[in-house]
Amino acid sequence: MANQSRFNLPEAIAVLTRTPTVFDALLRGLPEIWVRRNEGEGSWSAFDIVGHLAFAERTDWMSRVRMTLENGEARVFEPLDRFAQLKASQDQRLEQLLDDFARLREENLAALDALHLQPEDLARRGRHPALGSVTLSELLSTWAVHDLTHLHQLSRVMAYQYRDAVGPWSAYLGVLKCTGHSSS
Amino acid sequence: MANQSRFNLPEAIAVLTRTPTVFDALLRGLPEIWVRRNEGEGSWSAFDIVGHLAFAERTDWMSRVRMTLENGEARVFEPLDRFAQLKASQDQRLEQLLDDFARLREENLAALDALHLQPEDLARRGRHPALGSVTLSELLSTWAVHDLTHLHQLSRVMAYQYRDAVGPWSAYLGVLKCTGHSSS
Repeated sequence: MANQSRFNLPEAIAVLTRTPTVFDALLRGLPEIWVRRNEGEGSWSAFDIVGHLAFAERTDWMSRVRMTLENGEARVFEPLDRFAQLKASQDQRLEQLLDDFARLREENLAALDALHLQPEDLARRGRHPALGSVTLSELLSTWAVHDLTHLHQLSRVMAYQYRDAVGPWSAYLGVLKCTGHSSS
Repeated sequence: MANQSRFNLPEAIAVLTRTPTVFDALLRGLPEIWVRRNEGEGSWSAFDIVGHLAFAERTDWMSRVRMTLENGEARVFEPLDRFAQLKASQDQRLEQLLDDFARLREENLAALDALHLQPEDLARRGRHPALGSVTLSELLSTWAVHDLTHLHQLSRVMAYQYRDAVGPWSAYLGVLKCTGHSSS
């Protein structure tokens, strides 16, 4: 099917609604090797990723949506602290973080729905501290793709734990060749 | 936590058990844009990926486990047809493929359990048509990482649909920079 790259609110919400369930289905009750190990010093474990998703849900997405609608480009978004969860969640259990992420996402999607966004709202602009002028549809698209980038990272971090165990099959397993392209 | 890459049967089974639920949680009921679109000509959609997982579950993994235990290196595994699902599943619905994958995986894990594999069995060797001599633990590790490589691919294929919609945020989203490293 031909590829287009066009934002559509119900389609984005369909992803955002499912992500907490996906992470929960994969991680809850999973042995520690998959949850607590990372890709080497300074990298993130599955636990860290869920902590980051819960933290961003608490501080970032809906705050930026509201700021765009209320202040436009006059007020710059707060930068997202990409490492906050490494402190904030260190004493928590994975199950608690999964519950937090699911609850916060549900609350945020209810708040988004309550805004009754109209097509013309999607073109409204806010100001990102590094990227400059951005539209509301770019922000909402990024919210969904941010889920996917961390699912991409999670599958890679987990696969890394078996990078030697697969023996010669590593040649066929693309996930073992992924360098992450960035921290996620 | 320090990284090691060592196979452990219950840990591998913990992943294998969860994967069908993960794909189901993400894909069932999702709008067509996420399910049927791919990354360009010759690449796979989410639908194709689930078809491939169901096909491999039907023809590949447990057949190779049994061949290793029964024939050792004397008999070469059948090659996996990586494109079979493009024909086999083209008239099916995604929901049917998700159901097939879940049922076949459940049956395969029950059959694996019934083998009562002992630690010494894990070192037994079979023969891969291209890779040569491989151990049972490498085969079972690959089964689990194969799930993860296709979850990695799925998140990338979905993210690709919003590669332009995210605007300047594409610079921060690692999944949009992933080239796949191979067909998966």
